[in-house]
Amino acid sequence: MPELGIDSSKLTIEKTKLPKSSLPTKGLVYGQNFTDHMLIIEWEEGYGWKNPEIKPYSNISLDPSCCALQYSFELFEGMKAYKDSNDSIRLFRPELNMKRMNESAARICLPNFDGNELIKLIIKLVKLEKDFIPKDFGYSLYLRPTMIGTSGGLGPKPPKSAMIYVICSPSSPYYGLKIKPVKLEAIDYASRAWPGGSGNSKLGGNYSPCVLYQRESAKRGFEQILWLNGEDNHISEVGSMNFFIAFKDNKSGKCELVTAGLDGTILDGVIRRSILELTKEKLDKEKWDIVERVCTIQEIIERSEKQEVLEAFGCGTSAIVTPVEGIEYHGKYIIIPTDLNNECGPLTRNITKWITDIQYGNVESNWSVVV
Amino acid sequence: MPELGIDSSKLTIEKTKLPKSSLPTKGLVYGQNFTDHMLIIEWEEGYGWKNPEIKPYSNISLDPSCCALQYSFELFEGMKAYKDSNDSIRLFRPELNMKRMNESAARICLPNFDGNELIKLIIKLVKLEKDFIPKDFGYSLYLRPTMIGTSGGLGPKPPKSAMIYVICSPSSPYYGLKIKPVKLEAIDYASRAWPGGSGNSKLGGNYSPCVLYQRESAKRGFEQILWLNGEDNHISEVGSMNFFIAFKDNKSGKCELVTAGLDGTILDGVIRRSILELTKEKLDKEKWDIVERVCTIQEIIERSEKQEVLEAFGCGTSAIVTPVEGIEYHGKYIIIPTDLNNECGPLTRNITKWITDIQYGNVESNWSVVV
Repeated sequence: MPELGIDSSKLTIEKTKLPKSSLPTKGLVYGQNFTDHMLIIEWEEGYGWKNPEIKPYSNISLDPSCCALQYSFELFEGMKAYKDSNDSIRLFRPELNMKRMNESAARICLPNFDGNELIKLIIKLVKLEKDFIPKDFGYSLYLRPTMIGTSGGLGPKPPKSAMIYVICSPSSPYYGLKIKPVKLEAIDYASRAWPGGSGNSKLGGNYSPCVLYQRESAKRGFEQILWLNGEDNHISEVGSMNFFIAFKDNKSGKCELVTAGLDGTILDGVIRRSILELTKEKLDKEKWDIVERVCTIQEIIERSEKQEVLEAFGCGTSAIVTPVEGIEYHGKYIIIPTDLNNECGPLTRNITKWITDIQYGNVESNWSVVV
Repeated sequence: MPELGIDSSKLTIEKTKLPKSSLPTKGLVYGQNFTDHMLIIEWEEGYGWKNPEIKPYSNISLDPSCCALQYSFELFEGMKAYKDSNDSIRLFRPELNMKRMNESAARICLPNFDGNELIKLIIKLVKLEKDFIPKDFGYSLYLRPTMIGTSGGLGPKPPKSAMIYVICSPSSPYYGLKIKPVKLEAIDYASRAWPGGSGNSKLGGNYSPCVLYQRESAKRGFEQILWLNGEDNHISEVGSMNFFIAFKDNKSGKCELVTAGLDGTILDGVIRRSILELTKEKLDKEKWDIVERVCTIQEIIERSEKQEVLEAFGCGTSAIVTPVEGIEYHGKYIIIPTDLNNECGPLTRNITKWITDIQYGNVESNWSVVV
């Protein structure tokens, strides 16, 4: 008999008896506060996905030998729910998160699922928690779908039971309300991902090993690490964001927006993909090439010396777009142009606006789903 | 004020009200059964390590946003307690596990601790569970010290609270009682570790991404994967064990026992290290070189064609020594000599005996600690 798929029509809801008051937007910190409820769907090998439940937010009880805690059978997604000017709730391209979540699951032998059914359940959760969605621009309800292997017994092997859960965190703009560019330290002595590894999946195990280098770099005064890969020291990601850099060729006058290609070490970011699609649509094709290619730190240094670097930024669901004002590499500081207010360059500003206008429903787009 | 260290004198013990009967050795499977109790020590930033507790084995309750489940702040060790012919309980080089556990913790910003204090506590746990230690040769009580980050809140950053726990699993010989060599598949399209990564630490996140390839390889008929690294395809580890191969030079008659050096991608295995030390001590120095060096799959193929490959084996705490009878690489099957009974070669057999004789106290050594 085939295993049962997730069935959103079987949802049961148990409401909290101790509702929190909705949180004031002032002083909200990303990922530190959670709403009243969470969504849980359990899976068992041979049976499939059990009936989904929305329950009061509470601790999870796990066997100490369980494979999530021993061998890191765990993955997550990052999504956001936004309130538009009509008080409607919107999700941004949720089907891309579901696709990637299924790819991450397959990468570590966790079960796959019907993404449309999970979206339906997430929508029910978000509607239940609608009072927790801050209305102000830049604020959102951050959603964290998580999947963990729950089966006990030692020895790394495919999990026999698992669980999806979704928790919600009312969130302020990641770096605060004022646009403030970050300083990066380009690092070639450590990597977050490598060919034949799992850097293109959103696995918990990709994150903890980066924190040590992040902490050391922060002590030296840098907000984020620019991870260099390979013997040619090509750029991969920045912190846990994708990275873009724009060049202008002095001779031809042609501009180029560059990001690393999906070679297995790069996360197929929803914002990354949206930026590639939007810039191809909106930028002047005579003037701009939008390219996924290898770009070495040496190229950035050389083109910076020729004043051919226009702008650079990181991007991801948490912070959307994070402008870059400089990159340190082996004691050399490469200045990345921003603007007179030291906020960000015009391309970075436009891209941020194009994305957020869709997310908050200021511009209609089928990327933004009213729920 | 400095943080408090682990203080084994503060241990409290709460005994189970529902003791299990000790398990029959027949039918015991590695890592599937656990004893009555577990050791728990909690840590909090600013305070340090709290009073250690031995409690009935039970589930752990974790916030769904906690950093162990989201960002894989988790690591473990593998140790064993053995019963010798006098019914004394023995540990094997536990200080090496403590050293490595502290190194793994530092790698992902989890707290360090006094390894001697944790050994004292593990000894108390092992003594409490002594009836669960099977007496037969090859059997043992497998010990699984684990450390997880327990603080909640999203965003990868150093944990603010953590927990060490130790669980115990009565275990049979990993591959059964009969020595049976394994077939390996050498893989160059995926890696378990890479320079600048975390493959030399015993982090949970190193394990789940390997299971997919292991499962695919098993379908093709291979027991373990031989992970090749780098453009030269040099051998790194086998499954989650260290790898050794012995060559004999036809011209000089000189023999060489080779394993990969500790380049950051290789786990500093307790059995690996013990084998290096024992073979340097016991093998004829005129005849044998014991070497940590790069060895490519091409070298193995070429020397196999010249009949210069003597033996190969994997090693680790779970299975101790696992003989290899062949390696498949790109459709080519390299036969590794064993013996007339197809068990293992004489060197592999000697090394296994040297190690287990110490572990079970048949031979006195300061590597074996009577507790």
